[in-house]
Amino acid sequence: MPRKRQNEDAILRRIAYSFRPSRNQPARQFIALGIGDDAALFCPKPGHETILTCDWFLEGTHFLREKHPPDSVGWKCLARAVSDIAAMGGAPRCFLLSLALPETHTGRWLDLFLGGLRRASRKFQCALAGGDTTRRNEILINVTVVGEVRSASALLRSGARPDDILYVSGRLGEAELGLQIVRQSQGSASKKNPLTRKHLYPEPRLALAQWLVKKGLATIPQIQTPEVAVRHGRDPLQLALHGGDDYELLFAVPLSKAKLIPETFRGVRLTAIGKITRKRQLMLLEENGRARKLMPCGWDPFRKTQ
Amino acid sequence: MPRKRQNEDAILRRIAYSFRPSRNQPARQFIALGIGDDAALFCPKPGHETILTCDWFLEGTHFLREKHPPDSVGWKCLARAVSDIAAMGGAPRCFLLSLALPETHTGRWLDLFLGGLRRASRKFQCALAGGDTTRRNEILINVTVVGEVRSASALLRSGARPDDILYVSGRLGEAELGLQIVRQSQGSASKKNPLTRKHLYPEPRLALAQWLVKKGLATIPQIQTPEVAVRHGRDPLQLALHGGDDYELLFAVPLSKAKLIPETFRGVRLTAIGKITRKRQLMLLEENGRARKLMPCGWDPFRKTQ
Repeated sequence: MPRKRQNEDAILRRIAYSFRPSRNQPARQFIALGIGDDAALFCPKPGHETILTCDWFLEGTHFLREKHPPDSVGWKCLARAVSDIAAMGGAPRCFLLSLALPETHTGRWLDLFLGGLRRASRKFQCALAGGDTTRRNEILINVTVVGEVRSASALLRSGARPDDILYVSGRLGEAELGLQIVRQSQGSASKKNPLTRKHLYPEPRLALAQWLVKKGLATIPQIQTPEVAVRHGRDPLQLALHGGDDYELLFAVPLSKAKLIPETFRGVRLTAIGKITRKRQLMLLEENGRARKLMPCGWDPFRKTQ
Repeated sequence: MPRKRQNEDAILRRIAYSFRPSRNQPARQFIALGIGDDAALFCPKPGHETILTCDWFLEGTHFLREKHPPDSVGWKCLARAVSDIAAMGGAPRCFLLSLALPETHTGRWLDLFLGGLRRASRKFQCALAGGDTTRRNEILINVTVVGEVRSASALLRSGARPDDILYVSGRLGEAELGLQIVRQSQGSASKKNPLTRKHLYPEPRLALAQWLVKKGLATIPQIQTPEVAVRHGRDPLQLALHGGDDYELLFAVPLSKAKLIPETFRGVRLTAIGKITRKRQLMLLEENGRARKLMPCGWDPFRKTQ
């Protein structure tokens, strides 16, 4: 007897059921029409601009099918895109989910994936508004997030000025170390390991996102557990400088206002790591006080690695 | 000597250059901030709701790398998503492009692709606002289109009522026939063949999109060139009933207003094909007047084909 396969309608019903209205529901008042019609209808708030961002989350490129727990894939595909809303100082409102799946993953994997996605949706107050599904041998995900910010108050990269002090939130490098641990794990990574949590379930700094603008020159805060990194054969400074996936905020503050920046914000450490200069160069100040040129070695999908 | 590879920044610059401001530029007044920052900023029009839709356009699933001209891939990935805006009676404003490419396709292929995408962007008055790029062995595309419609005036599927007359625009089945011709072609399909044009460069019925709502019962208008279909060994009725990709509008009109529907709208034929009933069934009236159950056989990516 042939195995029963799910068709596209059944998958849409499963998604709709997973995101059915409930008390913990994120702000659905912004959605006039959700999944099921040709498109979604969003009601913009007067006096606000709409922030639009989309992000790939692809098997093999951004996660590993056998090593990343499905609920982490669900959580993270939304958290990544929401972090771009945070970077502009906005509030997330709703998202579109484009999902391509093998037939083998339309059952339990899909349920666990939707569980993680739903948790993120509630945590970030960002409701599912629509999407597109298809069948594919590989798991492909694309998430579009719609956010809002009061008109003309978005934080832009172009806002940084010479002599501004550069701050970063949290600790850098933990997520990169987490990725390396997940890669080396046998089978699906443990969700309990605190060292992998920041990689598997990152939290964009939405509440902290009243400041922003990138452009760097830095002494980089290292992760607090360098001995763990060393045990894994990694240099904590290299992890912090060139590792990705932290979803922390980097922001520039005029010198005159720097005294208003607290040491921690709701438990998250804020660290001054450098300042904006007029030069088009990234300089790293070493502990001995010497400056050296810092070459960007972060992740670029089109850069040759060998 | 190793071939020079493009990194992600170079690809973004290429896209930005291709969509640089010009006189024929689509309505950029809606975009406060375009590509280059963390996210895009869209300025909603007062008294309007925002329409959101996204669509996969994947190599192997939606197009064939060797057979579909790159500029058709660029045109069609946007036209598909815009057709969902048309289906709601809205006006497209801007779009986000998520693009995953092999390194081998970051040169001439990308240029031709962007050429087709730019033509569609101008034709549909839908400006590029942002996106995401990455490297991948296969060409993966996802397009999110943002449109607008006056508040509470969007055409919804739920709007159809019993006894409404069902109309369809244009002629159905040509696109499906075009696909079959493209599949059988040696190498890249000819852009000149009128039979493949509707498949390669579909035009959503934006101007006609003041009506909408689906729910079917039908005698289906056949394509005008049945002898061509027969020459290709295809049944025109089957092409029209079950072929996809037409991007025509199907809409329901109250009986009392049906006399207001013209025979053609800006040169596009409008055909009454059936009516809405209270039954949850699709019935096909045959030429001899007999009714038979019509089973949906259109494309479902999760349906087994063998």
